[in-house]
Amino acid sequence: MSPLHPLVARRWSPRGFDAGHRLDDATLAALLEAARWAPSANNSQPWRFLPARRGEHTFDLLAAALADGNRVWAPSAGMLLLVAAQTEDETGRTRPWALYDTGQAAATLVLQAEHLGLAVHQMGGFDTAAVSTALALPPTVRPVTVLAIGRHDPAAPLPDDLAARERAPRTRLPLDALLLPGPWQAPPAAAA
Amino acid sequence: MSPLHPLVARRWSPRGFDAGHRLDDATLAALLEAARWAPSANNSQPWRFLPARRGEHTFDLLAAALADGNRVWAPSAGMLLLVAAQTEDETGRTRPWALYDTGQAAATLVLQAEHLGLAVHQMGGFDTAAVSTALALPPTVRPVTVLAIGRHDPAAPLPDDLAARERAPRTRLPLDALLLPGPWQAPPAAAA
Repeated sequence: MSPLHPLVARRWSPRGFDAGHRLDDATLAALLEAARWAPSANNSQPWRFLPARRGEHTFDLLAAALADGNRVWAPSAGMLLLVAAQTEDETGRTRPWALYDTGQAAATLVLQAEHLGLAVHQMGGFDTAAVSTALALPPTVRPVTVLAIGRHDPAAPLPDDLAARERAPRTRLPLDALLLPGPWQAPPAAAA
Repeated sequence: MSPLHPLVARRWSPRGFDAGHRLDDATLAALLEAARWAPSANNSQPWRFLPARRGEHTFDLLAAALADGNRVWAPSAGMLLLVAAQTEDETGRTRPWALYDTGQAAATLVLQAEHLGLAVHQMGGFDTAAVSTALALPPTVRPVTVLAIGRHDPAAPLPDDLAARERAPRTRLPLDALLLPGPWQAPPAAAA
């Protein structure tokens, strides 16, 4: 079997972050630059970002909007990054791939982070309405996730239930469950 | 500035593919394995795939569903991969991050492909209804993209307009256009 790329193989989403770690400007620029070069439908680039580092008031704003379960650990990360999708183009036409492409940008950023020795934990659990209001986002800019980005700290204090999840092995569905079943499983004849 | 990962820096979406190239089983397995390990909301893994290699009848089925502009070049790739999103969970609840996470899986697969020396060109332009009907997909499985995956061939024959686009430099919006503007640009005070 061809080798799985090490960045893909070792990436995971910890909750234990080093609360003393700060993201420098070069690192932030590299993360955003990686996302910027992701592919998108007709190069529409629907992804939008609000990076917020610890000590910036937008960091506190995003932290306050997190679901309780996330607010316990995520603010120990050096950065909270709001990822949003511009769901319409300049002419008001819906972008059907806005969320898909925004996910592509996020995944590209995550692998760049891994490359830089950083960990990322993405969160869907936050008050999107509160964020939209606080940031005066137009309705065509849809908050999708908040990414906690920082240096993994295996010794970071966590509540017992989260600490247990932190130690559990990564799991995925078997490949068979991801392949679309259907009529093509009995092809009429093998082609040359 | 921290270095952009070479897989991110050099990735692009060509239209010129080597029509004689065939994807072996190990390569296909590695591509799907990379996608499988992408992150997703609550590890829901909403991505679904139908890989079709040249010579398989599903390849012809997907090729026939492509928009005219894509059908000119995409079937020269060794594989067409249908990427779909399971938009509801087993209990019928909507998965708000299904498209976003499916995009993450696709982007992870694309970087794995780049790692293996392959090129990927994603297409949103195809007849999703025809694909859903032909494959008897349930309404909760939404076809999102078809990926042409193969070996880039800079000498592959292309119509003049596409050949010109093939030679054009990659472009992206400036970073400023991707950062959310708003009230946080004038923070009340710089925090420590």
